[in-house]
Amino acid sequence: MTTQPSYSIAIHGGAGNHRQQSSREALIEYSLRGVLTQGRALLDAGGTALDTVVHCTRLLEDDPLYNAGYGAVPNCAGRFELEASVMDGRTLKAGAVTNVDNIRNPVELARRIMDQTAHVMLAGRGAAEFAAANRLASASQTYFQEGWRKHATTDKDAYGTVGAVARDRHGDLAAATSTGGQVDKLPGRVGDSPLIGAGNYADNDGCAVSCTGWGEDFMRTALAAQVCFLISRQNFDAHAAARAAIETLVSKVNGNGGFILVDRIGKIATAASSASLRCGWIEHGGEIKTALQASIRIARAAS
Amino acid sequence: MTTQPSYSIAIHGGAGNHRQQSSREALIEYSLRGVLTQGRALLDAGGTALDTVVHCTRLLEDDPLYNAGYGAVPNCAGRFELEASVMDGRTLKAGAVTNVDNIRNPVELARRIMDQTAHVMLAGRGAAEFAAANRLASASQTYFQEGWRKHATTDKDAYGTVGAVARDRHGDLAAATSTGGQVDKLPGRVGDSPLIGAGNYADNDGCAVSCTGWGEDFMRTALAAQVCFLISRQNFDAHAAARAAIETLVSKVNGNGGFILVDRIGKIATAASSASLRCGWIEHGGEIKTALQASIRIARAAS
Repeated sequence: MTTQPSYSIAIHGGAGNHRQQSSREALIEYSLRGVLTQGRALLDAGGTALDTVVHCTRLLEDDPLYNAGYGAVPNCAGRFELEASVMDGRTLKAGAVTNVDNIRNPVELARRIMDQTAHVMLAGRGAAEFAAANRLASASQTYFQEGWRKHATTDKDAYGTVGAVARDRHGDLAAATSTGGQVDKLPGRVGDSPLIGAGNYADNDGCAVSCTGWGEDFMRTALAAQVCFLISRQNFDAHAAARAAIETLVSKVNGNGGFILVDRIGKIATAASSASLRCGWIEHGGEIKTALQASIRIARAAS
Repeated sequence: MTTQPSYSIAIHGGAGNHRQQSSREALIEYSLRGVLTQGRALLDAGGTALDTVVHCTRLLEDDPLYNAGYGAVPNCAGRFELEASVMDGRTLKAGAVTNVDNIRNPVELARRIMDQTAHVMLAGRGAAEFAAANRLASASQTYFQEGWRKHATTDKDAYGTVGAVARDRHGDLAAATSTGGQVDKLPGRVGDSPLIGAGNYADNDGCAVSCTGWGEDFMRTALAAQVCFLISRQNFDAHAAARAAIETLVSKVNGNGGFILVDRIGKIATAASSASLRCGWIEHGGEIKTALQASIRIARAAS
């Protein structure tokens, strides 16, 4: 395996059912390009994949176009409960948070849990207490209501979860994912985004991967772990691993969604069973590319 | 692959550092035999693996010998926060719960979430609200304090998480896991036990597996999913998959703990990097066996 001196990064703004470009999609493309430009600046200067995916995910959380952070969607009780995770492929250290309702940037909290506790994941009140003790920026439910009004799309199938994966100049991988979850989810619902091995995973021996879609489908198939093991254990390349994993998602649970990945040599792949997967990437330091659909698409059965 | 008409079941009462039999271990052996006897009755009569693992895990939760349910250990704030999961290998449906402090049998709640919601996992207050609406048996913090006093061992390294895996006469697999978590964990901490793919997994094409130990190690390696994929994707047999996975746990994160599994043809394997793994099993309808240690042991580096 040769090590590439260049960097790679991919980001996504969620899976959905959009088949055609719209004015909203144009805004999203503009936003993704801006985030990738910032990601490039960090990676080009020798920054770590870990710092870069957290930074890019935070930018996506602050943009009401997406269902994460500011633009998070409400649960069936009208409340905003957010979740996020981050994983460092060099050390396999990870941080995750779920069921937080007063944190501006859940991905920053996930990073803090990874760095400053013996744990990987905190939930609910315990997570909020840890965040307060560590002076993480808080946000009120009013803040999320405001973002949701700006976000407002009538499309309940637009999941809009965000994520970032990167390989830095040192050859290290990292992945981050953040979401507001499903519209009208039950209070307390935990999705795949904060679950290491379900919606997010990174291992320098395999790949970094971030998923989006109907979270339960990714949990039941441990999809992020599956993508990574196909590379680390079975020596699939990025494209073959992405294809095999999205085929598994569909064949096993008729799963709905997609993912982005960057493998150990910096190759990027995108795959989805949903009609759309808003994403953008820079492969080996090249041009910024964006797409409304994944490059590998497997149709799911009508349900 | 030939289908065995008989059933198999394995249960565990946690990983720890016990190297020698003690009077407490004798009690645990007696308890495990009792639970396996009940598991056998269900499976022998044609009961499902799913019903059996939930029933056996509930029995273990009600016994203060283990760190789950009644015998759960307190967090650093002196409170009891429990978690559990269940997975059906036939359908890949799963249920899980974390951060509940007033439910007598978390594994029953996990099953209810699986059966009656569109979700896999609920946490904290939302989980408690769902449990109340579904009339799950509640329990006070006083109940858990009482169990903990009976449980009381001075050994903080005795994790005591419980779990059960089974293959029924129909050839279907299931797995369940339940825990009180680590002694002195932070409030809100989520461990591997409720995480599908980390501490629990079941797929008829692979195996059913239940883990115990330092939960974060199993989360960082997506260990339960890894064990299953070694069988379903790489055609390892039960023993080879168990060995490869426990080696990975140690080589990747110097992980501490172990797991039990039953594979798609009813073979049972136990593996651990911890000194002890209290477990018992019935393979292909045979005799009840119990052990204080896993059959496959990989030493971890001193830490």
